[in-house]
Amino acid sequence: MSLGSKNPLHSQVKLPFASNFSAVGVFDSGLGGLTVLKALIEAFPNENFVYLGDTARLPYGSKSSETIRGYAEQILEFLTSTAKLKAIVIACNSASTQVPESEWQGIPVLNVIDPGVSLALNTSQSSRIGLMATRATVTSDEYGKRLRQKNPAAHVVSVACPLLVSLAEEGWVDDPITNLVVYRYMEPLLRENIDTLILGCTHYPILQTSIQKAVGTGIKLIHSGSAMVEALKAVLPENSAKAEGFVHLLTTDLNPVVKAQAERLLSPLDMSSLTWI
Amino acid sequence: MSLGSKNPLHSQVKLPFASNFSAVGVFDSGLGGLTVLKALIEAFPNENFVYLGDTARLPYGSKSSETIRGYAEQILEFLTSTAKLKAIVIACNSASTQVPESEWQGIPVLNVIDPGVSLALNTSQSSRIGLMATRATVTSDEYGKRLRQKNPAAHVVSVACPLLVSLAEEGWVDDPITNLVVYRYMEPLLRENIDTLILGCTHYPILQTSIQKAVGTGIKLIHSGSAMVEALKAVLPENSAKAEGFVHLLTTDLNPVVKAQAERLLSPLDMSSLTWI
Repeated sequence: MSLGSKNPLHSQVKLPFASNFSAVGVFDSGLGGLTVLKALIEAFPNENFVYLGDTARLPYGSKSSETIRGYAEQILEFLTSTAKLKAIVIACNSASTQVPESEWQGIPVLNVIDPGVSLALNTSQSSRIGLMATRATVTSDEYGKRLRQKNPAAHVVSVACPLLVSLAEEGWVDDPITNLVVYRYMEPLLRENIDTLILGCTHYPILQTSIQKAVGTGIKLIHSGSAMVEALKAVLPENSAKAEGFVHLLTTDLNPVVKAQAERLLSPLDMSSLTWI
Repeated sequence: MSLGSKNPLHSQVKLPFASNFSAVGVFDSGLGGLTVLKALIEAFPNENFVYLGDTARLPYGSKSSETIRGYAEQILEFLTSTAKLKAIVIACNSASTQVPESEWQGIPVLNVIDPGVSLALNTSQSSRIGLMATRATVTSDEYGKRLRQKNPAAHVVSVACPLLVSLAEEGWVDDPITNLVVYRYMEPLLRENIDTLILGCTHYPILQTSIQKAVGTGIKLIHSGSAMVEALKAVLPENSAKAEGFVHLLTTDLNPVVKAQAERLLSPLDMSSLTWI
């Protein structure tokens, strides 16, 4: 790899640990992936985690495949060269669509799509499955392709919901305006009689109350965090539980707004156990 | 400047012109600056323009001062080294807050804030002026500082409106949901009896109908494009009208969504006279 010397992340991100620090790497375009990290911390309380949020270049969802692939490669190169990783979790749907690899320099790579696909197929009775996601994820049709590959009878309906990330970041949670926006996005899905709905963007669990209100209790929501716990269990080494439980949060751009959003996303997790860089 | 060799823009952006191409350079974090470019094209129909939209890294409004300054320096270095510029227009409020320079390598630099400040002060009868902008622009208080510097009696009230860029990009223009969002943001401003309101983000003119509805016809809206026309007139050389009227649109990430948004922003301008790269 010749990327190392040109990779802007090496000069942009400070490191709070030595290069032999052993951990699970998690990354996202920004902070949405913290909903996945939160589920992982709760399931693996003694595991070490290094989270990288690419807040200087977020969001990925409106960018082209080539740009997203380039950013993801920089992050994979950066994470694998700065810590001793047990696994890498791509907690970002847009990045997951552009990383088909199941390992990177010998380290298992878990994209956020496959676990969600499996959980949705196991959950759905009618195989009529809805997907709400960013425009990039919907356009890539990666969820649709993988759902139909595992179950050719699956009927998949997708809708791009670009406003929801901003609403989640603004903190307008269970708010009349958010309910209206969610209902407008969900309307075409509701006409298709789905029984399962994939939250195809890691920000969306924050708006779960509005989403469940809009679609009704008859439709099951698929949360990527819960799905990822099972996927990570399958690749972690046996002795992994002996780690120290350190959680390091790295960002490419840290500011007070980012910190406030992160606290909202990780709530009610105890923030004092986390190191911010 | 040693930035050149490390500047990612040189490998990222293709150039449709020779290095002696003489033009006015315009840049923005994305496409919002096209509302300023549109006003400039209408006012200077024979002028050449090179527009750079940093669509791979947008939005700037939620990023830190240091990150925005770094991106702006890369774009200034890129534009001045790739064309023969008569002037550089920073058609981005967030970037303008981080570029105090009035020239760059001998070329006049016009930030989008000062012309808006002057127009607002000339328009307001009561010197009670409102500002709606991204979080970064509001936090920097650059509008407030410059308004009070020119008129110490000015009373300035600012509100950050993070959702409006997404609504403008989604094309929900003059829409009931947009009206509700705008009204919620405007409410604290309306309590302050302002008579003039600066649209402190270049995306906002697209939502002008909703904004005017929310604040009522008694409040005058300040559009950066109109303000910038006067500022550019003052620095352009005498013989500038003899140019060919070429308009080149460059982006760091071009995709169909970007193109569709650009057409909406430049409408009803004839897109066939523009070169897309």
